[in-house]
Amino acid sequence: MPSADKPTVAAKPRKSAVRRQEILRHATALFDRKGYAYTSLDDVAQAVGIKREALYYYFRSRTEILIAIVGPQTSGLIDGMQAVLSQTLPAQEKLRLAIRNHLQRFDRHCLEMTIFLRDGVMGGNEELHVAMRRVWKDYESMWTRLIDEGKAAGEISDLGDSKMIAFGILGMCNWLARWYNPRKSAPIDSIIDTYFAMLSQGLQPMHQRAGEPSALTAPARVARPSQPRKKST
Amino acid sequence: MPSADKPTVAAKPRKSAVRRQEILRHATALFDRKGYAYTSLDDVAQAVGIKREALYYYFRSRTEILIAIVGPQTSGLIDGMQAVLSQTLPAQEKLRLAIRNHLQRFDRHCLEMTIFLRDGVMGGNEELHVAMRRVWKDYESMWTRLIDEGKAAGEISDLGDSKMIAFGILGMCNWLARWYNPRKSAPIDSIIDTYFAMLSQGLQPMHQRAGEPSALTAPARVARPSQPRKKST
Repeated sequence: MPSADKPTVAAKPRKSAVRRQEILRHATALFDRKGYAYTSLDDVAQAVGIKREALYYYFRSRTEILIAIVGPQTSGLIDGMQAVLSQTLPAQEKLRLAIRNHLQRFDRHCLEMTIFLRDGVMGGNEELHVAMRRVWKDYESMWTRLIDEGKAAGEISDLGDSKMIAFGILGMCNWLARWYNPRKSAPIDSIIDTYFAMLSQGLQPMHQRAGEPSALTAPARVARPSQPRKKST
Repeated sequence: MPSADKPTVAAKPRKSAVRRQEILRHATALFDRKGYAYTSLDDVAQAVGIKREALYYYFRSRTEILIAIVGPQTSGLIDGMQAVLSQTLPAQEKLRLAIRNHLQRFDRHCLEMTIFLRDGVMGGNEELHVAMRRVWKDYESMWTRLIDEGKAAGEISDLGDSKMIAFGILGMCNWLARWYNPRKSAPIDSIIDTYFAMLSQGLQPMHQRAGEPSALTAPARVARPSQPRKKST
């Protein structure tokens, strides 16, 4: 009870919650811009406009701040995925909902997701690593289960190992940490639609899928030369 | 000419090239394991078994070491992609070759690619950032061009913005930096085949695509229960 012997006990909880959020907001911006590894507690204290000693009242270490930033995101991802998996829906619809659960988080918490995906694996202490790896492994397993169940139901093509497929989808989605900007990029819903369409239907036009059973068999255009283009050099 | 006034001039070039490679090998292992941000020049010198002062003979800074590690990988990616784009082939075949060009690099240079994709964006000095960003942007543009040309030729479905599609494919491939291990994971050729199949054909079985283009409107099988599964909790 660090505030028990202070005179302003009554007003403390509210004020302290606000200050805590303020610290997290500044730390998130700094971790995003400079990287967790290159941000010191002094940097955070300075950005907030308080002394480093005052910071210790809220967070004992940089690791604690990192956990406070990424924790809600990982819980949100897992809870959302759990909800998708527990529904009775065709596998393709589950796939769409799982992609949406993952990508919508970038829209609302882009910086936090970036820090989670970039800095969560490196830095911090060993304890943090172990905890992060466990959470991430749980999440990956849920994706693998989605693919496995879809294959078993005949609703997802068996194009390879389920884990490999799950990692491919996660990679596609996680890469948003590198390029997505909620203020500048296309609306998240259009990214969800495009990525689901790529993964579900594929990029090859139906009329070109000569060998496929239900493809509208157009005359093979295999030898067609690609568009003429001016050389850049 | 730092070696001009040394007595062992004749033997130097050969020996120095070997030592240089040895430093890069140790630095690569350390950067991969600890992260670039958490590896000091002292750590590298100690791993090689030389003094830090001796290290300066080969590399003036940690940034120089990082460039020496990732430079050949970025050039390799770009040269390979240039070769793919310059060929006269159907877009789907170019897509397959471009995925192969990217993923085979993980097979041969997994640690270097991991360092490039994870540490290349953060740390180092501003000059390095700018150079890295430029190279990466060039490479991204080549992917966007592949998609654009494929759409124009009617060989790639227009599922959304070409850059967004290109980033999705790159994300899928780059995520190998997080999970792929050349000694433990599936052979790289099977990953290339699976990822190309996912991107080209999609995960939805053909027989379920009744009402193309939007197959999800097939007579709703919404009530179909998913595979029975034992609860984990």
